[in-house]
Amino acid sequence: MTPDIRFMKLALSLGRRGLGQVWPNPAVGCVIVRDGVIVGRGHTRRGGRPHAERVALDQAGEAARGAVAYVTLEPCAHHGQTPPCADALVAAGIARVVVGTGDPDPRVAGRGLDILRAAGIAVTTGVCAAQAQDANAGFLKSVTQGLPWVTLKLATTLDGRIATATGESRWITGPQARRAVHGLRATHDAVLVGAGTARADDPALDVRDLGDVRQPVRIVVSRDLNLRVNGRLGQTAHLQPVWIVHANDADTRDWSSTGATLIPCPLHHHQIDMLAALQELARRGLTRILCEGGSHLAASLLHAGLVDEVVMMQAGCMIGADGLPSMAGLGTRELGDAPRFDLIETRALGGDVLHRWRPRRSHADG
Amino acid sequence: MTPDIRFMKLALSLGRRGLGQVWPNPAVGCVIVRDGVIVGRGHTRRGGRPHAERVALDQAGEAARGAVAYVTLEPCAHHGQTPPCADALVAAGIARVVVGTGDPDPRVAGRGLDILRAAGIAVTTGVCAAQAQDANAGFLKSVTQGLPWVTLKLATTLDGRIATATGESRWITGPQARRAVHGLRATHDAVLVGAGTARADDPALDVRDLGDVRQPVRIVVSRDLNLRVNGRLGQTAHLQPVWIVHANDADTRDWSSTGATLIPCPLHHHQIDMLAALQELARRGLTRILCEGGSHLAASLLHAGLVDEVVMMQAGCMIGADGLPSMAGLGTRELGDAPRFDLIETRALGGDVLHRWRPRRSHADG
Repeated sequence: MTPDIRFMKLALSLGRRGLGQVWPNPAVGCVIVRDGVIVGRGHTRRGGRPHAERVALDQAGEAARGAVAYVTLEPCAHHGQTPPCADALVAAGIARVVVGTGDPDPRVAGRGLDILRAAGIAVTTGVCAAQAQDANAGFLKSVTQGLPWVTLKLATTLDGRIATATGESRWITGPQARRAVHGLRATHDAVLVGAGTARADDPALDVRDLGDVRQPVRIVVSRDLNLRVNGRLGQTAHLQPVWIVHANDADTRDWSSTGATLIPCPLHHHQIDMLAALQELARRGLTRILCEGGSHLAASLLHAGLVDEVVMMQAGCMIGADGLPSMAGLGTRELGDAPRFDLIETRALGGDVLHRWRPRRSHADG
Repeated sequence: MTPDIRFMKLALSLGRRGLGQVWPNPAVGCVIVRDGVIVGRGHTRRGGRPHAERVALDQAGEAARGAVAYVTLEPCAHHGQTPPCADALVAAGIARVVVGTGDPDPRVAGRGLDILRAAGIAVTTGVCAAQAQDANAGFLKSVTQGLPWVTLKLATTLDGRIATATGESRWITGPQARRAVHGLRATHDAVLVGAGTARADDPALDVRDLGDVRQPVRIVVSRDLNLRVNGRLGQTAHLQPVWIVHANDADTRDWSSTGATLIPCPLHHHQIDMLAALQELARRGLTRILCEGGSHLAASLLHAGLVDEVVMMQAGCMIGADGLPSMAGLGTRELGDAPRFDLIETRALGGDVLHRWRPRRSHADG
């Protein structure tokens, strides 16, 4: 039997519903097909439980016996809060499993497939592998590199400014772009800003008007913890997670009773070492982080090669050179040194334009 | 008979072939239809002669008798180098004329239509009027306002930079975007840059690799005429027009023998008064001007409300805040004061993105 990639594409689209909602777990999708008819579908639920396979099997019930299961990521093999999904697929009498991509988690890493094969289930892997890897890029990066996927969002004028000289930035982009930002937040585990942005904008960094979603962790990078505790983040830290990345020697007294999680980090050239900071955030389970600026944090992430995707939202207005730039100095001496990106998508978004980019792999890689 | 707008759309697309090639004339298109069959088509030829109607009538020959002529702009009524097109349509026995939009040129201004009607020809006007006005926006603006249409091209990085701190700008955008710039130049009567750009880049500002085209006039705004005569522009001024807009009191001795046309202009706040400069360029016959920077000229045109369209070409790279900005200071204190634009188009262009914008009409206008 040749796997039908339409079912895998459906599973991928189901799986993507979990992005931002399931950390530290992967956002998996599963479709169960018997005699060409879909009898079960599922995706990993908020918080990571139940897994996609479990949801789809429950929906299929007895119809799962002899059916084909399309799963975007290798079924888990380890006993956690629940028995392994590989065992559940065997117990349900699934005849064949089609897998998007393997799970490099050392507790799985092929053992899920081994369990299936040992039970006599036919296994096909690598179906829509590139899309499956893309759909779980954050989880896969955190497992294999110990770093979260970082999306950098820039909302700028046509001349690359994010605020007037006096700091006014509300609103450069229109309502549809701002709504899309809430969509971006909802599909990331955490939203990250620098201390300057936190001080200037006093942002809430939450997801609004998108129904019942798991709210992202709100992270501020503030070397000296020079942040008002009576701002929006300080006042809501006991309701929705606020994590503050600060220097080892910062004075933490003001913030210690707010409910915020304080994360000391080493410095690099007198600034927070963002590589170390992101490693610590991955260790705490974050797989997808949306950085919303400001220009210094964006520049330090970019300069360190830590940005995986750039989402530009650009409004039809000009502020001029006295406005605030979207990107601080990168020390680019020659054009050949400038970070380069490949275009993924461009489209109109209300009266603004959206374009998405991913870092160009060097010629040596490609 | 109801006019068939497909024929007018064809005439419009023929007419647009003349953009940049026909100044000081309008870029008109004409389609002659007899019994539903196209028997003649034409557009105003390079330099403005012959006119579109004449080309189409010559092609139709005897088939023009009793036919319908679709013309994007009211046929001319004045004796210039050739007899009026209105007379030619009458003489050819055309039965009906369908017109896109009127010609506000005081030598025409309804008199072309009067000649047709007086000869018993049925005349319908305002068919695809908005597109017809758009296709001849430069000519119409020059006739009605005494100013050319100004397109501002910006080729920038994602963070709005046009060069590194050391001035390196070749190349930020890719080959397809650079080829599109040559297409833009070919459809404009003139290419305009500031003195800083002329000094830094020593540009040729010509159209290359697009076959046999009328080359645009190359214009530099240089208050003090502080430009090397042995650069590309100075060395080729006797081959392809170079016009230099300078202050009334600039020292013109170096440039007087290069073949360049020197155009003295008044100052405004110690800079060339761009309103006066553009009025003078319109008086000299230019209807469409492409401004290719730099940031100071772009800012002064924008600040004076003289930009009719912005064409952004944006490359997937970042230079950072130490690079050169695309737009100099505009004195924007509050976001409400920032010039706003409406999106016309966005699409991928090779590895870059292209987006086009037109100034937002104020609420009072709209």
